[in-house]
Amino acid sequence: MDEAAPKVNINYYTCSRYMKIGIVGGTGGMGEGLALRWCMNHDVVVGSREAQRALNAAAAYSKVVAEAYGTKMKGTITGNENTAMAKDCDLLVLSIPYEHINDTCGKLVSAVKENCIIISPIVPMKKGNDGFEYVPMQGNTSSAAEMVAAKMPPRSRIVSALHTISEVKLKHVKEGIDCDILVCGDDANIVRVVNGLIAEVKGLRPIYLGPLSMSYQAEVITPMLLNAAKQNKIKHPGLKIV
Amino acid sequence: MDEAAPKVNINYYTCSRYMKIGIVGGTGGMGEGLALRWCMNHDVVVGSREAQRALNAAAAYSKVVAEAYGTKMKGTITGNENTAMAKDCDLLVLSIPYEHINDTCGKLVSAVKENCIIISPIVPMKKGNDGFEYVPMQGNTSSAAEMVAAKMPPRSRIVSALHTISEVKLKHVKEGIDCDILVCGDDANIVRVVNGLIAEVKGLRPIYLGPLSMSYQAEVITPMLLNAAKQNKIKHPGLKIV
Repeated sequence: MDEAAPKVNINYYTCSRYMKIGIVGGTGGMGEGLALRWCMNHDVVVGSREAQRALNAAAAYSKVVAEAYGTKMKGTITGNENTAMAKDCDLLVLSIPYEHINDTCGKLVSAVKENCIIISPIVPMKKGNDGFEYVPMQGNTSSAAEMVAAKMPPRSRIVSALHTISEVKLKHVKEGIDCDILVCGDDANIVRVVNGLIAEVKGLRPIYLGPLSMSYQAEVITPMLLNAAKQNKIKHPGLKIV
Repeated sequence: MDEAAPKVNINYYTCSRYMKIGIVGGTGGMGEGLALRWCMNHDVVVGSREAQRALNAAAAYSKVVAEAYGTKMKGTITGNENTAMAKDCDLLVLSIPYEHINDTCGKLVSAVKENCIIISPIVPMKKGNDGFEYVPMQGNTSSAAEMVAAKMPPRSRIVSALHTISEVKLKHVKEGIDCDILVCGDDANIVRVVNGLIAEVKGLRPIYLGPLSMSYQAEVITPMLLNAAKQNKIKHPGLKIV
């Protein structure tokens, strides 16, 4: 652990500062939702393994936000290949399957800036006979955030967050959201920046759980919500602590 | 698995029927809260390792409900030693620490009726340097519900539920609750009975997750909520799926 883990209440947001935000694997629904929301205040770069796919997605998202926000929008949405776009970013969101962690993070680690913040929303999950399972409960892997931290040191810049937000809710920029986002990380100042970014999306409340080692308690919520949704016919489920 | 695990939506409650409900370890806050709520329609027996403690607790709870409910109350609250009271019960709630599972369940298994339903609200949890940890994530134990099932077959009668309800909220019988209760179990009919019992407490919504093997996804929520509560100064936290 590079810095002492925060032990005190850090449900306090650093006021948003302008950032260049890259979304690795940003052509999926999660990347789309985050780009549509964060471009209001930041320059968002959609990343993909294929630059052309990223450019196409960015063009499509840009059209949506131009219509939705007009001149109120302060940022932009552009696209590029994952590693190329990562070089200039102040913050990266790894919107990738857990099976790609070692490969993708291995490519990114030498490209990113030293003080680049890394958000892992990754959930090691698989569908079993009884429903969606959280893979680390089987004991052979650690949490996704721990896997990312091992490949992209220093550990202090990794924040685990955004596992439980419905991408459909994120994408509908005109509709309200009312969900909590569980957040884990070792560095209080970096967690505050991420909390601030989450709180920029109206209706999202960041809930800090503790250091990165606690990430399994946030990641496991995703298969739980998918099982609850399926068994109880709940659409686009999210979490609230009440 | 004694019966095929339910694969369909069973968020449907069996209408409440009268039951004799025993709460093993019922002199704690959780036992108190459940006794105060369920005595409205059922005979509740508070259990303890010492009969006299159980009798004292039952007398105290009875005074509270007599004042709160008056003649609207259809059931009773009595007390007895854990194993003695378990003999006549239609349903038992194991309100015990996970370290006591093998000992307590070993004593109960020969005492209980063949068709007695067993609810496990037990959470294997410990406080570590980073916060509250879910012990089965360390890989040496299974979920509490699996431990109970191993000691008290048949597996089909075990239902995992009631891990996340604040005992303070339960005890304040005049105040409203608005929380979800995650439920896992292998037998659809037995899960329906438990769902019905949960739904009798106004403001509690049972959310079925899947078979008993999914219990870890319900149990892990308790340390998560305790960490969230501590870090964000939330009192008596509960869960809602939104």
